[in-house]
Amino acid sequence: MTVLSSLSLRYQDGQLLVLDQELLPQQEVWITCESPEHMASLIRSLKVRGAPLIGVAAVLSLAKYRKDGATLDEVAAAAAMLRKARPTAVNLMTAIDRITKDLKNVIQTAEAIFAEDVALCDAIGKHGAALIQDGDSILTHCNAGGLATAGIGTAIGVIRRSHEQGKRIHVFVDETRPLLQGGRLTAWELEKLGIPYTLICDNMAAALMRQGKIQKIVVGADRIAINGDFANKIGTYGVAVAANYHRIPFYVAAPWTTVDQSCTDGDQIPIEERSADEVRGVSGSFGKVCWSPTLAKTFNPAFDVTPAALVEGIILDTGVFGREDIKRGALTGTV
Amino acid sequence: MTVLSSLSLRYQDGQLLVLDQELLPQQEVWITCESPEHMASLIRSLKVRGAPLIGVAAVLSLAKYRKDGATLDEVAAAAAMLRKARPTAVNLMTAIDRITKDLKNVIQTAEAIFAEDVALCDAIGKHGAALIQDGDSILTHCNAGGLATAGIGTAIGVIRRSHEQGKRIHVFVDETRPLLQGGRLTAWELEKLGIPYTLICDNMAAALMRQGKIQKIVVGADRIAINGDFANKIGTYGVAVAANYHRIPFYVAAPWTTVDQSCTDGDQIPIEERSADEVRGVSGSFGKVCWSPTLAKTFNPAFDVTPAALVEGIILDTGVFGREDIKRGALTGTV
Repeated sequence: MTVLSSLSLRYQDGQLLVLDQELLPQQEVWITCESPEHMASLIRSLKVRGAPLIGVAAVLSLAKYRKDGATLDEVAAAAAMLRKARPTAVNLMTAIDRITKDLKNVIQTAEAIFAEDVALCDAIGKHGAALIQDGDSILTHCNAGGLATAGIGTAIGVIRRSHEQGKRIHVFVDETRPLLQGGRLTAWELEKLGIPYTLICDNMAAALMRQGKIQKIVVGADRIAINGDFANKIGTYGVAVAANYHRIPFYVAAPWTTVDQSCTDGDQIPIEERSADEVRGVSGSFGKVCWSPTLAKTFNPAFDVTPAALVEGIILDTGVFGREDIKRGALTGTV
Repeated sequence: MTVLSSLSLRYQDGQLLVLDQELLPQQEVWITCESPEHMASLIRSLKVRGAPLIGVAAVLSLAKYRKDGATLDEVAAAAAMLRKARPTAVNLMTAIDRITKDLKNVIQTAEAIFAEDVALCDAIGKHGAALIQDGDSILTHCNAGGLATAGIGTAIGVIRRSHEQGKRIHVFVDETRPLLQGGRLTAWELEKLGIPYTLICDNMAAALMRQGKIQKIVVGADRIAINGDFANKIGTYGVAVAANYHRIPFYVAAPWTTVDQSCTDGDQIPIEERSADEVRGVSGSFGKVCWSPTLAKTFNPAFDVTPAALVEGIILDTGVFGREDIKRGALTGTV
């Protein structure tokens, strides 16, 4: 019997459970995923989130669907539906496309994708930790941790491995408005891991950089173009611009499943826009409040694009690639 | 009988009322200020806030104290106490020092300071509006409006005058975490004024700049050093860094009472740090929520310092001064 278990996924005995990330950190509630339609709704509502994780969770829901007796045509239709659940993170499309190419083996492929993601995170953690010095303070944005992957995470995987190596590190956590993945999820994960951190509002990061309090920046990615431009949670670009001004190395950590071979630059990455209520206030298991004028017009892109020129290196499972490597084609499948 | 009235202050018939800015925009509640001690507490809790306004409100509370029968010694002691209510905005110290130098005329001086602030805002609005073009989208941070002054505001005064001149402008409003002066107060003011605006999370400003959607940035200031460095609400520095990267003109609007002649550069400006709960969640008349781990360690400076090198011009009541003017001493009392 296959048992797959991560910080936010459990797959065993024909059951698929996901940790409700909307309710964290106040409540740790596991949801039993009933169907691919249910999974799509969990992904759209961000109960299941994180670029690598939504790919893994989506294909596991298809494996369960097949185990529950769905025909290959039904699996194919569900795969097509899931592929559109969210537009920006390419891992979802990559994982679904692997399933679609070999529908008869949906169960084996889905389980393999989970195991691969664990291994990818380990490899990213190893390569990334080599960049971190004893005494470094590291800024991260959003949550690119165990909650966002099947493994130890990407950016947080790097941080975790550095900590396990005995390096005395400190993490500054951007709260990451509007949905507070930093304040809710990354803070929760770092507490669980026993890694010292300080929570800040997003707009405080630049002042910390000016004070010399940040030595490295490590973030995840939702889609990386082959020229090194990448999309990540809204606010990432502003952090990269500030890092550039202060000459602080800015790293992106992601598995190869985040690199979109069909995407030549960042302008081609579709950016999801979300509802005005997310900006007018906050809501979650902690409550719901609206602090702005009720009908305030807002702008609410879920992601932004950071150009490769602002990135010191991309930490992939296959190694760390600098700007020059990327210019020479390090992110293309042919190299 | 003297009647002084502004968007957030009323002074008449021996009474001093202030609009509770902590409750805006959900509730418009006027508080009767009973004493200088009461005013100090209103200032510390940010029910009365905004660099110019806290100076005006503080001295009016001393005028009322004197009218109520306080001796000159009592007024002097209350003035010394009020001077320390908040550390960063120098307008408070400037206003109190004027009172202290001429205690016998506390009532006349306080009333004159109110009237002067109205005139200073008008002059700032006039000089600043000349910089704004038809069709400009302007980003502002925090609230430097009618709520923050006795007049039309500083940054918002510039915006308001531009709008009144018939220029088709749009305002992007940073919500300004943690206390949301943008989302709560600036949005409320712009609605009252009928000026089109879009509310954004602070971390979205850089992405808007990259998209070419912002032509000018105008913010207020809490203290300006004579070399042009200035302190303003936390997050201002990050906006200035992003503006610099995108070559978008960044302006600071303030009255001469914000220039600290004793302060030669920004490193000398004391920065207030506030409580962790402000970063762990939000609270106000809209409710109180905590979304992060309950004991999350935080960093919560209320202000940051932006170096003069990032400023295109400082809009004072006496005119607009560029970097070269400031290098030649435009902010020193001797020029």
